[in-house]
Amino acid sequence: MSTLQETIHQMGRQARAAAYKLAQLSSDEKNAILRKMAAAIRESTPELLAANALDLAAGTEKGLSAAMLDRLMLDEKRIEAMAAGIEQVATLPDPVGQVMDAWERPNGIQITQVRVPIGTIGIIYESRPNVTADAAVLCFKTGNATILRGGSEAIHSNRAIAAALAQAGAPDHAIQLIPFTDRESVAVLAGMDKWLDLIIPRGGKGLIETVVSLARMPVIKHYDGICHLFVDKAADFDMAKNLTVDSKTQKCGVCNALETLLVHRDVAARFLPQVAAALRAKNVELRGCEETRAILTDILPATEVDWTTEYLDLILSIKVVGSLEEAVSHINTYGSHHTDVIVTADTAAAEDFLRMVDSACVFHNVSTRFADGGEFGFGAEIGISTDKLHARGPMGLRELTSYQYRVRGNGQTKAPR
Amino acid sequence: MSTLQETIHQMGRQARAAAYKLAQLSSDEKNAILRKMAAAIRESTPELLAANALDLAAGTEKGLSAAMLDRLMLDEKRIEAMAAGIEQVATLPDPVGQVMDAWERPNGIQITQVRVPIGTIGIIYESRPNVTADAAVLCFKTGNATILRGGSEAIHSNRAIAAALAQAGAPDHAIQLIPFTDRESVAVLAGMDKWLDLIIPRGGKGLIETVVSLARMPVIKHYDGICHLFVDKAADFDMAKNLTVDSKTQKCGVCNALETLLVHRDVAARFLPQVAAALRAKNVELRGCEETRAILTDILPATEVDWTTEYLDLILSIKVVGSLEEAVSHINTYGSHHTDVIVTADTAAAEDFLRMVDSACVFHNVSTRFADGGEFGFGAEIGISTDKLHARGPMGLRELTSYQYRVRGNGQTKAPR
Repeated sequence: MSTLQETIHQMGRQARAAAYKLAQLSSDEKNAILRKMAAAIRESTPELLAANALDLAAGTEKGLSAAMLDRLMLDEKRIEAMAAGIEQVATLPDPVGQVMDAWERPNGIQITQVRVPIGTIGIIYESRPNVTADAAVLCFKTGNATILRGGSEAIHSNRAIAAALAQAGAPDHAIQLIPFTDRESVAVLAGMDKWLDLIIPRGGKGLIETVVSLARMPVIKHYDGICHLFVDKAADFDMAKNLTVDSKTQKCGVCNALETLLVHRDVAARFLPQVAAALRAKNVELRGCEETRAILTDILPATEVDWTTEYLDLILSIKVVGSLEEAVSHINTYGSHHTDVIVTADTAAAEDFLRMVDSACVFHNVSTRFADGGEFGFGAEIGISTDKLHARGPMGLRELTSYQYRVRGNGQTKAPR
Repeated sequence: MSTLQETIHQMGRQARAAAYKLAQLSSDEKNAILRKMAAAIRESTPELLAANALDLAAGTEKGLSAAMLDRLMLDEKRIEAMAAGIEQVATLPDPVGQVMDAWERPNGIQITQVRVPIGTIGIIYESRPNVTADAAVLCFKTGNATILRGGSEAIHSNRAIAAALAQAGAPDHAIQLIPFTDRESVAVLAGMDKWLDLIIPRGGKGLIETVVSLARMPVIKHYDGICHLFVDKAADFDMAKNLTVDSKTQKCGVCNALETLLVHRDVAARFLPQVAAALRAKNVELRGCEETRAILTDILPATEVDWTTEYLDLILSIKVVGSLEEAVSHINTYGSHHTDVIVTADTAAAEDFLRMVDSACVFHNVSTRFADGGEFGFGAEIGISTDKLHARGPMGLRELTSYQYRVRGNGQTKAPR
């Protein structure tokens, strides 16, 4: 084994041992440590700024884009937000120990299904240093030990944040940061299924694909959001227009922003000019299918590529469909199973849509932008899962737990005695 | 693409289309089809026996062991059991459509979390032809389309069973059997994450390892059961003896059978001779740690290998431990996180054990043999998961579902208007 492998495997063993200690902490004990972590982050502001300055200088030298440098940047406001976020997590209810189900069998054994921590979680992320605190703290709250592997751009900032968190009296190795940033460290982590119960990659599609192809343990993926809004023939035009504009423009660089608008043929000629005017007022570039372009004659054509593109920008593709079924079929074929909306005053049509669309979030008369752990009331979000197993859609604390069956009896044997 | 790849990808596309149809069937419609499947299996008895005879002849020629041939064999009784099993599944409650949670947000949006089918499931299995019906039917009941890939030994039987199931009027391609049995077909299936939401390998460790290393989609694993029973110092000796004998001998070739007995030092000298006599009366070979062998002087030593071995046979390893904590530590280190038992009259000790042991099933005063979907009252079992994500422990119908958030509003936008 190489030094890198040995180091990471040793971290894995330590994480497992820490997880067993974490699982035994009460909610009060965990919350007290979380509040100390928040205080330590605040007190370490000078160290965090100094470390971040090193990363920013290296990033500038490397020629990182302004957007990348902004993602990397910490200032007093962002550090305070990090600390406040940790304090907020301390106030949330702890899912660990909750009884999910309980019943008694005819033979008298009593079965309870109880939420327990998952155990050990690897987080692989890119340039935002705040992920170091955000992800580690959500995992800590739910009694999980974390191994963090951040990107090279943020290594000094990540180390400083991890050092601050380590001052709060958590069990040893509850939160560990891998000291390596080379690609091999991802491969070693992904192959270490004995020590790691789950990997959550946070970053672009390339990172997620790499982790998926290497991982031997479960991976919870947060792929892209190709979100649709379908304007049914029974839609209120004002509502449809407002929801389209909000879904597309309230914040366009995020996974729950709208990318494709579907409009029922029966209302296309009347609705499209109205919505186009509202979108253009917000500087949205429109691209359309042939039928759309017969109505909005001055827009560019949308091709097959557009239907599968997450623009993350002020661009919207538009398609006219002949029926609700055609809308559903387009969404299920081209979408990313993230969040899709129907706008209609016809409740039966809405219920058909909700039942037939194969997405994590299906909405009736609501903006796509509400597909979010915060908006759902989870208090905190580790991401929005595009997977169907374990966690689907917005993931809060509950989704960072597993369960265990605890069975109590009085000597029951299977063979009759 | 090779013909094999093309064929399997085409099956994947068809499975996805079938899944969308299956998701829209009512429970009554699915149950009616299940009853027709049972009838078709019964009516196809001559065809199944003829196909099975071909497999048995080929297996005999290949020199398969008597145990392998028995696993392969179908007779009228086993075919009737297969049909009766399908009828039993038709009587079970359907988890699809169940509301798991529902709440309203301050802005008036109403969120419901509803169970939906997972979608498409690949089942990769070895020589038992009854898996073709058992697994496909549980997936069908929960609205999932299946792609089955059985072992070469049972190919004629598997085809005959699939042909019988296909007569029952299910949507086209709801249940598909891959016509290839070469290893490449496993690799193609495991790489097809666009069309397959989940793979469940049913078979030995080698098969599971292969699928895990190849799969790009989630895999639910049913690894081995290295189950422990800890006799605490406050145990009732008769109960402890009965539970040990039942856990080890009621059926020893299964994953929920006992493999290692842990005995508290304070009671070892009195308890071990009693339990040893009872186990020997059932022909169990005993192997012990040094302290055990100081008491049971005529047994072989247990080595490190024994602590991690699933004997699946009438062999039991025994270790004396100094405390409950030492028992827990041994179990968490050497066990397979399947099922572990404490026998004690001390409720506080029992609760400590249940909370500290990191296993899917933790039992107090109950035989390990109750770690089973049937014994839990699930009515049917697809297996016992040794994973911590999505499903842990006995998996019934509920564990073959995902969920979806259905959100209803009246035009809510994120940006204030």
